[in-house]
Amino acid sequence: MFAILFLFLQENFVKMRKLKVGIVQQKISENVQVNMDLLKKNIEQCADKGAQLVVLQELHNTLYFCQTENPINFDLAERIPGPSTDFYSQIAKELKIVLVTSLFEKRAEGLYHNTAVVFDVDGTIAGKYRKMHIPDDPAYYEKFYFTHGDLGFTPIKTSLGMLGVLVCWDQWYPEAARLMALQGAEILIYPTAIGWESSDVDAEKKRQLDAWKTIQRSHAVANGIPVVSVNRVGREEDPSCQTAGIQFWGNSFVAGPQGEILVEASNMEEENIVVEVDMSRSEQVRRWWPFLRDRRIDFYGGLDKRFID
Amino acid sequence: MFAILFLFLQENFVKMRKLKVGIVQQKISENVQVNMDLLKKNIEQCADKGAQLVVLQELHNTLYFCQTENPINFDLAERIPGPSTDFYSQIAKELKIVLVTSLFEKRAEGLYHNTAVVFDVDGTIAGKYRKMHIPDDPAYYEKFYFTHGDLGFTPIKTSLGMLGVLVCWDQWYPEAARLMALQGAEILIYPTAIGWESSDVDAEKKRQLDAWKTIQRSHAVANGIPVVSVNRVGREEDPSCQTAGIQFWGNSFVAGPQGEILVEASNMEEENIVVEVDMSRSEQVRRWWPFLRDRRIDFYGGLDKRFID
Repeated sequence: MFAILFLFLQENFVKMRKLKVGIVQQKISENVQVNMDLLKKNIEQCADKGAQLVVLQELHNTLYFCQTENPINFDLAERIPGPSTDFYSQIAKELKIVLVTSLFEKRAEGLYHNTAVVFDVDGTIAGKYRKMHIPDDPAYYEKFYFTHGDLGFTPIKTSLGMLGVLVCWDQWYPEAARLMALQGAEILIYPTAIGWESSDVDAEKKRQLDAWKTIQRSHAVANGIPVVSVNRVGREEDPSCQTAGIQFWGNSFVAGPQGEILVEASNMEEENIVVEVDMSRSEQVRRWWPFLRDRRIDFYGGLDKRFID
Repeated sequence: MFAILFLFLQENFVKMRKLKVGIVQQKISENVQVNMDLLKKNIEQCADKGAQLVVLQELHNTLYFCQTENPINFDLAERIPGPSTDFYSQIAKELKIVLVTSLFEKRAEGLYHNTAVVFDVDGTIAGKYRKMHIPDDPAYYEKFYFTHGDLGFTPIKTSLGMLGVLVCWDQWYPEAARLMALQGAEILIYPTAIGWESSDVDAEKKRQLDAWKTIQRSHAVANGIPVVSVNRVGREEDPSCQTAGIQFWGNSFVAGPQGEILVEASNMEEENIVVEVDMSRSEQVRRWWPFLRDRRIDFYGGLDKRFID
């Protein structure tokens, strides 16, 4: 009887594996120190609300400098480890949280990456991910700044589980999410920086935002794991004045393993949100929708081709 | 001047390449002849409204017989070509439409497939697709009936363009959609049969329907091409009485190349809908969101693994 009760409780304990996820959606100024101090305050606020995992937006220390191609911006890059990792390591350690950051990495003179660095609860670097898919379109000149990543799509092991950390443009690629899931990622995490061109009409703005949410929610659906996406918010001017700048659209969100939205930020305001994610639902969802079981790997050979013509 | 005007008109002609797509969302009875006669009437109605391409739901000739495993149901299968292809060929030819059908194929004694057959405007069989991903879960015992397809993910060439025809369970796999797009599919088409278990609570029903829409819309987004999904509607009983049957959820839809919903059917009623799709938008969307350009094919090797452990 006690044994049965124990098993019952144990099963319910497993069923209730909750993870409190904090997301920080922030406006960024040109003063890096001010930005970092504000980020620290926001991370602390999330931790106060019980967050065990906190995720920051893409390249959160600085303005989104990729609006123009200017060699002086390479001065913003830092070694990893370096001053910024020291700063965030200390915060993670003090608050005993897992912290996902996004930094401009100087790997060597003339060799730079857009790199997510994950800190574990003791402040150590649990792992890093170098953005694999690099965009290049007007006002997002990332191919000028970032060498594409060479660490592959490898989840980062932390004391809270295996994190499938990807960055921004990666979010449009089902291949990236799938490779993370196939290597045991328990949650997908996207620090991101995306917004509207001022010249876009409202219908186009809506289509873009919906597409962005849809593709990321679909990675949850296809892989049966939750997704966390954290975007910056607010307007940032184009220093070259060639465009009217970018209105970063916020809308940071957390979705469950069926792609269902658990929480979503506004598209104009700074917000710190903490939400509880039931991590044990993933296995339940995968049992009912066993997509991994039925993949036709015998016919997927062409996926590593550019085009099949 | 005339040359300029001609070029202008030509460019606008290209910009305006419209395709009128008809979808038939239907309830199915146990009388096959009645079902086929009604389908014919519905297809004609779509053609009357100008449809050039008409898409039917999955296994439209019969009740969804996969609710139980019963060997007698193999009698429903037919050779391709056979009586059903003769019937639909004649309709396509008379109405001068491209018609996407979904049949239970008897390939040999004891070897059966779930096969989509596409007819061109002259009534010829343009091509067929044998469902590649086969589900098996309570009330959807498809692994009992259907051998998984061996024709691969190959678009079907028609006089209206290259059709990426997939079937139902395939819709959960980004790999399938991608392989169609990489081989030049200009539109993705999913005949499908999906519904709710009577025991599901409303919140779960909503999550399932949203996930189903989200994943299919995401294929449009990831590949920059429109998606057509046609589902059956109405309640069908479980002959074994082990479950309370399936309430097929309708909600057939057509989405544009950013995943934007162009038209959507109800979840309870039979409907014939014709919608105009601007096929030339795909190239515009792909120019602005050039996802195909940036795929990291040098790191996609693991996609043909079952799991990477």
